[in-house]
Amino acid sequence: MSKGKVILSYSGGLDTSVILAWLIEQGYEVVAFLANIGQEEDFEEIEAKAKKIGASKFVVADVRKQFVEKVCFPAIQANAIYENVYLLGTSLARPVIAEALMKVAEEEGCFAVSHGCTGKGNDQVRFELSFYALKPDVVVIAPWRLPEFFNRFAGRKDLLDYAAEKGIPVTQTKAKPWSTDENLAHISFEAGILEDPNTTPPKDMWKLTVDPTDAPDKPETFSVVFEKGLPVKLVLDDQKKTVTDPVELFLEANAVARRNGVGRIDIVENRFIGIKSRGCYETPGLTVLRNAHIDLEGLTLDREVRAIRDQFVTPTWAKILYNGMYFTPEGEYVRSMIPPSQKTVNGVVRAACYKGSVVILGRSSDTEKLYDETESSMDELTGFSPEDTTGFIAVQAIRIKKYGEAAREKGTTLEL
Amino acid sequence: MSKGKVILSYSGGLDTSVILAWLIEQGYEVVAFLANIGQEEDFEEIEAKAKKIGASKFVVADVRKQFVEKVCFPAIQANAIYENVYLLGTSLARPVIAEALMKVAEEEGCFAVSHGCTGKGNDQVRFELSFYALKPDVVVIAPWRLPEFFNRFAGRKDLLDYAAEKGIPVTQTKAKPWSTDENLAHISFEAGILEDPNTTPPKDMWKLTVDPTDAPDKPETFSVVFEKGLPVKLVLDDQKKTVTDPVELFLEANAVARRNGVGRIDIVENRFIGIKSRGCYETPGLTVLRNAHIDLEGLTLDREVRAIRDQFVTPTWAKILYNGMYFTPEGEYVRSMIPPSQKTVNGVVRAACYKGSVVILGRSSDTEKLYDETESSMDELTGFSPEDTTGFIAVQAIRIKKYGEAAREKGTTLEL
Amino acid sequence: MSKGKVILSYSGGLDTSVILAWLIEQGYEVVAFLANIGQEEDFEEIEAKAKKIGASKFVVADVRKQFVEKVCFPAIQANAIYENVYLLGTSLARPVIAEALMKVAEEEGCFAVSHGCTGKGNDQVRFELSFYALKPDVVVIAPWRLPEFFNRFAGRKDLLDYAAEKGIPVTQTKAKPWSTDENLAHISFEAGILEDPNTTPPKDMWKLTVDPTDAPDKPETFSVVFEKGLPVKLVLDDQKKTVTDPVELFLEANAVARRNGVGRIDIVENRFIGIKSRGCYETPGLTVLRNAHIDLEGLTLDREVRAIRDQFVTPTWAKILYNGMYFTPEGEYVRSMIPPSQKTVNGVVRAACYKGSVVILGRSSDTEKLYDETESSMDELTGFSPEDTTGFIAVQAIRIKKYGEAAREKGTTLEL
Amino acid sequence: MSKGKVILSYSGGLDTSVILAWLIEQGYEVVAFLANIGQEEDFEEIEAKAKKIGASKFVVADVRKQFVEKVCFPAIQANAIYENVYLLGTSLARPVIAEALMKVAEEEGCFAVSHGCTGKGNDQVRFELSFYALKPDVVVIAPWRLPEFFNRFAGRKDLLDYAAEKGIPVTQTKAKPWSTDENLAHISFEAGILEDPNTTPPKDMWKLTVDPTDAPDKPETFSVVFEKGLPVKLVLDDQKKTVTDPVELFLEANAVARRNGVGRIDIVENRFIGIKSRGCYETPGLTVLRNAHIDLEGLTLDREVRAIRDQFVTPTWAKILYNGMYFTPEGEYVRSMIPPSQKTVNGVVRAACYKGSVVILGRSSDTEKLYDETESSMDELTGFSPEDTTGFIAVQAIRIKKYGEAAREKGTTLEL
Repeated sequence: MSKGKVILSYSGGLDTSVILAWLIEQGYEVVAFLANIGQEEDFEEIEAKAKKIGASKFVVADVRKQFVEKVCFPAIQANAIYENVYLLGTSLARPVIAEALMKVAEEEGCFAVSHGCTGKGNDQVRFELSFYALKPDVVVIAPWRLPEFFNRFAGRKDLLDYAAEKGIPVTQTKAKPWSTDENLAHISFEAGILEDPNTTPPKDMWKLTVDPTDAPDKPETFSVVFEKGLPVKLVLDDQKKTVTDPVELFLEANAVARRNGVGRIDIVENRFIGIKSRGCYETPGLTVLRNAHIDLEGLTLDREVRAIRDQFVTPTWAKILYNGMYFTPEGEYVRSMIPPSQKTVNGVVRAACYKGSVVILGRSSDTEKLYDETESSMDELTGFSPEDTTGFIAVQAIRIKKYGEAAREKGTTLEL
Repeated sequence: MSKGKVILSYSGGLDTSVILAWLIEQGYEVVAFLANIGQEEDFEEIEAKAKKIGASKFVVADVRKQFVEKVCFPAIQANAIYENVYLLGTSLARPVIAEALMKVAEEEGCFAVSHGCTGKGNDQVRFELSFYALKPDVVVIAPWRLPEFFNRFAGRKDLLDYAAEKGIPVTQTKAKPWSTDENLAHISFEAGILEDPNTTPPKDMWKLTVDPTDAPDKPETFSVVFEKGLPVKLVLDDQKKTVTDPVELFLEANAVARRNGVGRIDIVENRFIGIKSRGCYETPGLTVLRNAHIDLEGLTLDREVRAIRDQFVTPTWAKILYNGMYFTPEGEYVRSMIPPSQKTVNGVVRAACYKGSVVILGRSSDTEKLYDETESSMDELTGFSPEDTTGFIAVQAIRIKKYGEAAREKGTTLEL
Repeated sequence: MSKGKVILSYSGGLDTSVILAWLIEQGYEVVAFLANIGQEEDFEEIEAKAKKIGASKFVVADVRKQFVEKVCFPAIQANAIYENVYLLGTSLARPVIAEALMKVAEEEGCFAVSHGCTGKGNDQVRFELSFYALKPDVVVIAPWRLPEFFNRFAGRKDLLDYAAEKGIPVTQTKAKPWSTDENLAHISFEAGILEDPNTTPPKDMWKLTVDPTDAPDKPETFSVVFEKGLPVKLVLDDQKKTVTDPVELFLEANAVARRNGVGRIDIVENRFIGIKSRGCYETPGLTVLRNAHIDLEGLTLDREVRAIRDQFVTPTWAKILYNGMYFTPEGEYVRSMIPPSQKTVNGVVRAACYKGSVVILGRSSDTEKLYDETESSMDELTGFSPEDTTGFIAVQAIRIKKYGEAAREKGTTLEL
Repeated sequence: MSKGKVILSYSGGLDTSVILAWLIEQGYEVVAFLANIGQEEDFEEIEAKAKKIGASKFVVADVRKQFVEKVCFPAIQANAIYENVYLLGTSLARPVIAEALMKVAEEEGCFAVSHGCTGKGNDQVRFELSFYALKPDVVVIAPWRLPEFFNRFAGRKDLLDYAAEKGIPVTQTKAKPWSTDENLAHISFEAGILEDPNTTPPKDMWKLTVDPTDAPDKPETFSVVFEKGLPVKLVLDDQKKTVTDPVELFLEANAVARRNGVGRIDIVENRFIGIKSRGCYETPGLTVLRNAHIDLEGLTLDREVRAIRDQFVTPTWAKILYNGMYFTPEGEYVRSMIPPSQKTVNGVVRAACYKGSVVILGRSSDTEKLYDETESSMDELTGFSPEDTTGFIAVQAIRIKKYGEAAREKGTTLEL
């Protein structure tokens, strides 16, 4: 008799295939779930494999639109970044996948959820915390954290032996010396030869973007239109092409960045569980759109609103997402702080991609007037009286003169 | 009889030459001061000009070493950046110049200081607040904020007429349609045709860096060694050249970036006085060294120390500097927060410059062991028990399950 | 012929009476404006005085309800406090008065606004910045910053002489050796004998609250009900009285605090213009309601939401208000961050006032279940497995063991 | 044969007595450790009990001086507070005890450490993280998280039975319906009847402080002298007594607060592990000294330094301590941020305690001159020109007028 129905986050790879077979062996009925979040996959082949191994059902959920509209675009609005460099490509996908998976779990009446994440990474945390928020009574079966599983499958050979025994088809291609995770926004590379942080990734590792040295010799120009901080139009100049649908826009932004080698990074980052790990990422479109958004904020966003958002909201937003805390009170709270900051972020940014970099060419806004050429002009005396600044400086100096006087009185010298 | 001795921050340009003559006309004795902070200038020609106009003395102070060691390198340690983009090239120079100038003012017995900054910019604030801190009783004469001056010299023609009248030599070269400020760390371009934020800067405006499209077709690799977050060695691979002296190191970092088109930015920023202005900047070496420093922090800096420094210290450091508040209690306070964060930032970063971008190739540290390949490896079970993570997640989930339960009880659904 | 119509913020005191006469003397038509914001005043007498001096019109605006609902209650929601101690009683009133005044200015067609604030205080800034936001083209006439005024009226005698000359009635009561500002939320005392920060305020200075040593010998208990962080009901136990109307509730909170000596503070604070000043304040009801609100957040607010609100929102909210930046982009932005933090702040707090202090007696919530007796009980093993905590600690320890190991390797000892 | 030597944090209570016996039963040699951190205890009786049960050694470490000087006084300097209310009395003690215990562990050659903390509290985390930092290879034996222990001792009766069996003396006094933790700085009460957050604590629960209604009818005045933010002298006026030794000073501060009913709080707080719990605390001296310190900062600390310290340093300091992260990189980092903020915090605060509250009476500083009576005086025109403020406001208004203009253009009205 079945121990009950489990939903498994299934990728078609060796690990989750073994887990699928193992769960069945343990007496569970298993629904295999796969999200189409823009990764390049042969979904039919994966379905066939899941069924062959014994999944009672296979469900693909197409979450690309949700991913772009509900998470990627808000990340652009928020200028989201983790530890100065990482654009959170993997983290962004997790709540979208979790939500879709838990919806299927509810529909299929699964009491438990299983996944193939290891016990050292961020993804186990991101998935499980989302599962618990969305269905607090769900049971999580994480085989890579169960001694009966990880002791049995201590090496790749054990997995292959079990696959052979269970008749699980194994791709004959040699495994790459790193692991990847891909979605519409990015691909990550980690582990294997990348574990030495001083090893430069081989040229053929990078997948989404052209190598900058192989990219076109001429900058490719384009413009992005934003409304309330969200990209609403992308105009590709060379191709005389204009896109407005969010997913299409995101894909075209990806395309222009990919063919010009834009969006690669290589970092050592701090995982939520307190371990440092090395990751290489390609995040083409997001890099382009985020840069354009930051530029437009210069023109259209009030200084103080920007400062508050930059210092308090953006890093908190990013940390919450990175740590898998999307579906939490603080996640909800911090996300509510973005739209009120973006009311005036309306306008167009002109930019170019060239051999690995994004260059801003200009920006304008029909509706926002915070920037005033005449006023900022050093050559004109309009706008306000220069004498006002004398008073401004005099008042700022009150405190500072006291500081200088105190130093003098105490016989010390202020110095660099 | 002289109204007393004034020190004038003198650049040799039309504005400060007119101010020099005008101050003398007002009855002041004027000491002309010029800092050598790495800008390209003919100092002797400027001295001759000042003397010809009537300065009682001309003093050049070479502050390049101080600039690099006391301000630029600490900026690298702090990852300093303003409004996500601007590396603060001009702001960094101001306290160094102000300190040198006030030292001369004390030596020469000047009761007042004068400068040619306009009434709308940041520099007037940066200079004057520093002057007041260093010598609280100093009198500031800011002609561009005095009606008797700015009404008399309402346009460039008035300045030229006055120059002719006073026998002030004027360079015959046509004025460029923008103004610049240069030092060892950067050059800025603003005003003139740049006041339209949608005008792309002409290719011949950029001065320090090669246009990326004209840069070499092959990435140029190098490595930077850091000790306690400060660059202590730069190794240029192609040239088999190693430099360790701070100024030399900074100049070589500039050189590699300049010949590869690295360090250009173009932004609309928020000045301290509340005006938006457009600036274009070239900050070659600082861009390279700052990127390398950020990368090394990934390998060697504790996560929480980094997060505290990133969120609280870096933006505060940058804002204080940008607003000219270097010599203030809070300036002193925030600067004290950098060295304790950098104890472990020791190691080497390998990188390359290529057609406008900096690429990190790898990093290592002999002394710091926060990164542990075995531990972060997804393939190995060493370091800690995977079961521990189960407990970690379970405890993190306590609060989150409550959040999910409360939503259920209130009949709402958590969603993206 | 009139130079145009000016609205004057008129208090009936000597200063603004002289200003009123002086404005008329300068050729302006003057509308005298007075806000009823809960201060104890004889409004009819003030009107008579204004008319006698020559105001063309006198307008009283009753803003008590707005003050309580739009500003005081949100301040309670935000736990607003400045420099750890000051509950912002004066600052809270300023935007309310400014809005009402500018509304009358528009209705009456006044091109300018005048007030009696001195050139050293916060209030001039608070009023004027609000005026400029609400009517950017308004002209401000601040006599105490105009040399033709402040030189003419250099001392109190000059004011009295002018009053005599203009037939302005002057109260015969001797001026108190401090100045005050009162509204429904508080009264402030500053200047005069209080300028020595070491002078203890005389017992008879305090006005709103009973001296704690004279307060009843028995604690007075009451309870406050909050909905979404706003006080919606106050139950006074002794008096068996329940109030729900916001203004009434606020007045009763004042009453219970006043008769028990609650809400006095005495501080040296930092004004916006960079001067330190000493202020004594009585803020009875706000003290009580804010304390109750903070207590209820302990029971009903998620830890992380609270931490984000506490660290980022509350101090920013307070600083913006203190500095008179209510009607600004950042004011609007930060105010938008309060309601989303208060969704769960629903429940009842029982408390008592006794001889100067507020004591919390207990709290409960029918709707919020974040607190769970069983779970937090040290004596019960329900809720989660104690073994989970082992994993939680083990994961937290990863980073920390590295820290300890690094110290050992470097031969240093971690110590207190 | 012994399984090795374990150090046990031993209190003499039933739990740790049972744990002592149980550890011996498991085959360990046990060193019993007790810190004298100012709690009221009969140390000899506890020693006798430990020996009787079978401890191979009993060590008392007197850490009172360290506790006051290394932790409590720095907490006063930092104005440390958790969740607006809790003065961290228990948290402060933990690193001091842990350090002393690990020192004994090293001396005695113990490979493991054991304690009686439950699996739901903060203390287990605080102790163990400190242990791991100080001795990364230490083994922790936490019986209340071990199934073989907590299943065996599921109720108090099981503990008593085992005590009887092992000949462990049990105090015949009935257990109080709450648990306490006491040190020189405070006592905590939690659990038992306090678990209902709406139950008012019984009058006889409070131990350190007199009930405010029973406190003297006359305020008791005293003054505290601070140097660099640390209390260096306490003068008790009534008793004509002056103390300067840190421990004595702290004890006298306790005494004055205790006899006047000062320092009680009652809150629901958020534990590190994500559970809410209700705690009642008496923190007499710390309350008094912290309030005095905050007051003196008003007089002597620069506004911006204070703001940075208040917003970034104080809450981070408190959170780190509360969560048991004292011996961490970030703990070390944040502690380094306090002394540089306190250079000018020198002076005297006069205050009084009265029936539960602390009242500030005045403050002065011989050395710090940031406060300037003449300057802050509303009645005098010295210090700076009132016209300067006009310029200051005009410059502040630039941004704000734009905000108002934008609203007008978009047809919206700014309102409260």
